Amino acid sequence: MTGMNLNYMKVKESYLFADIRRRIEEWQKENPGKKVLRLGIGDVTQPLTPSVIKALHEAVEEQAHAETFHGYMPECGDPALRKAIADWYRKRNIPVNPEEVFVSSGASDELGDLLHLFERSLPAMIPEPAYPAYADANLMDGREIIFPGTDIENGFQPLVPEEDLTALIYLCSPDNPTGAVCTKECLEKWIAYAIRTESVILFDAAYESFVCQENIPRSIYELEGAKKCAIEISSLSKTAGFTGTRCGYTVIPMDLVRDGLSLNAMWVRNRTTRTNGVSYILQKGALAVFSEEGQKEVSLLHEVYRRNAKTFMQALDEAGLSYAGGKNSPYIWMKCPCSSGSWETFDILLKQAQIVATPGAGFGESGEGWIRFSMFAEEEDVEEAGRRIIRLRNEKYF
Amino acid sequence: MTGMNLNYMKVKESYLFADIRRRIEEWQKENPGKKVLRLGIGDVTQPLTPSVIKALHEAVEEQAHAETFHGYMPECGDPALRKAIADWYRKRNIPVNPEEVFVSSGASDELGDLLHLFERSLPAMIPEPAYPAYADANLMDGREIIFPGTDIENGFQPLVPEEDLTALIYLCSPDNPTGAVCTKECLEKWIAYAIRTESVILFDAAYESFVCQENIPRSIYELEGAKKCAIEISSLSKTAGFTGTRCGYTVIPMDLVRDGLSLNAMWVRNRTTRTNGVSYILQKGALAVFSEEGQKEVSLLHEVYRRNAKTFMQALDEAGLSYAGGKNSPYIWMKCPCSSGSWETFDILLKQAQIVATPGAGFGESGEGWIRFSMFAEEEDVEEAGRRIIRLRNEKYF
Repeated sequence: MTGMNLNYMKVKESYLFADIRRRIEEWQKENPGKKVLRLGIGDVTQPLTPSVIKALHEAVEEQAHAETFHGYMPECGDPALRKAIADWYRKRNIPVNPEEVFVSSGASDELGDLLHLFERSLPAMIPEPAYPAYADANLMDGREIIFPGTDIENGFQPLVPEEDLTALIYLCSPDNPTGAVCTKECLEKWIAYAIRTESVILFDAAYESFVCQENIPRSIYELEGAKKCAIEISSLSKTAGFTGTRCGYTVIPMDLVRDGLSLNAMWVRNRTTRTNGVSYILQKGALAVFSEEGQKEVSLLHEVYRRNAKTFMQALDEAGLSYAGGKNSPYIWMKCPCSSGSWETFDILLKQAQIVATPGAGFGESGEGWIRFSMFAEEEDVEEAGRRIIRLRNEKYF
Repeated sequence: MTGMNLNYMKVKESYLFADIRRRIEEWQKENPGKKVLRLGIGDVTQPLTPSVIKALHEAVEEQAHAETFHGYMPECGDPALRKAIADWYRKRNIPVNPEEVFVSSGASDELGDLLHLFERSLPAMIPEPAYPAYADANLMDGREIIFPGTDIENGFQPLVPEEDLTALIYLCSPDNPTGAVCTKECLEKWIAYAIRTESVILFDAAYESFVCQENIPRSIYELEGAKKCAIEISSLSKTAGFTGTRCGYTVIPMDLVRDGLSLNAMWVRNRTTRTNGVSYILQKGALAVFSEEGQKEVSLLHEVYRRNAKTFMQALDEAGLSYAGGKNSPYIWMKCPCSSGSWETFDILLKQAQIVATPGAGFGESGEGWIRFSMFAEEEDVEEAGRRIIRLRNEKYF
């Protein structure tokens, strides 16, 4: 033995989305020229908005001249951006200070990196179905994983376990993949549990901008006590179309203390040692998102995806298919018809209708029998996918 | 105990460069209006070159339109950039394949992230003086650190230890902070040692573009056997002025196998799970660096910093001060005069001549009694710093 991290052998050789990509490529090679409608991976299709583009161009131009050139950025983020994000929280009466905000390269990157703060003996608690990287990243760290139940009958609310246990708790709302949102009551229970057990909640808020229902929290800090037990991880990927541009943010409250250690101070130490900060150019683009103009523009982006969800839900209704999500989320989580399995339904959709979806089984055992459709797509593709699904149903493919 | 990573308590509360920044800020508050010459942190001052700026603008513009918009990038890097980097190696007769190249956010980020491949029981071997993040990142992982000797008399060559031991070996050439370069003979010894002990070398080549001496390797893969034992980590920060723009690359050869595991395959698994790739915009900028025009432009950047080194070495010669580095490196590593300590010399330079340098003691115990000057600075600042040092010497400050 020569000191490799053998925990890598605990995960499947390739990651879910890489798997799906390969299957599609193989099918396309055998069936060239057929148009595939991609409702699989949750990748945005709308371009960056005018304010962001303007800010990015300006930042690039600054990098062209010695007088305006920017070298190393502060590792925890540009103070102007940290402040803008804190202000944006404060406008919604959520008290967040700039020093509690960390600029990141995006939520996926951050969710893995944050694990470094925790001992590998601390178990991870992941309500499934869940974004597969949650479990994979923890398995690769050698952590034990506990799967508390999810109340499927009750809108996929993650269920607080009966046993008290100190853990790293994952909550995602609006949820990927189910599209469910945590109610206030649900979050209150989790916060009480986390405080009582000295657990830490990783609250993945990457889809917060899709919440439209009243009384559904967009930030866990809308709930009392959350600053004592939760880290909120968010991103501009879905909010502002940054999937390929990359920039996100994380809030680690000053009140979050465990074993006498401030998690905020630990993260400052981690970032200053292990990164040289996020690109100046990207942070300038991100800053534009939080301007008044930027906020107006991104709300138009969300409308495109919300319209898609409405269109697709109408088609599923017409086809008499059951589903969750879609209302406060860009994801529609469909029950596979005729008791078929996730991958079976994936194959029917791909081969008979050239629709790519993501098999629910890829999000954990409890996702078996479900399939996820992403509404991050062109409007005409969503309309066409709806028509094809109605046809599949009529032709009794399922 | 609630599962925090208590290894964070093994490192000093703040990182070396954050420490220095604070000291300067405090001094400047007490002495407003005095011009400080910053030869401390190794941060570039020359703007990005025209080809890079053009490519960045074009990439931003692509993100503005649905037809050319890019979402998620491949996690291991844009295939075009991976190929361009492999071709750039091949042009120098170093056989590197695109699949062996990973695009990163920069060397600092990557050096910490790569540690995840290794068990925490594997000791790190760090020839000191060394970039402080090497030791800090390993301490925060809970790894034991072994400091093999450095042959100070012989141009700061890192010395292969007498005892055979499996470890994660850090080599940096041209070296930060000493400016020393590893000779072929030196690297051959390390490669033989690593193969014999099944160790892995992390070869930090962030300063490779500053090598001008014949026969000094710019890549460890110029040496036979290196692909069986070494990962090469590099960056465009110093090569092309990307410190604040962020993009780098890492080579993990297919031949690098330990415990029956391919480190390349492990890193693919890590990246696909834990990141969503580097920004499309930044990768487009990076691609321009590897074009013919880009290569010409960046060589002009290096000349600026090389001229600075020449100017400064002349001043040190005139002042009768001893130093290493500066020839194949943007760093000049000066012996503190009059047997004074690193921080003592730092204070004299700051208070008596308003020059910021980096105390050698910050790079480990063996750096005590030395101080590092960075030549990443404006030409007139370097000239002025040279004059001030001559004055300090004449006025017997040291």
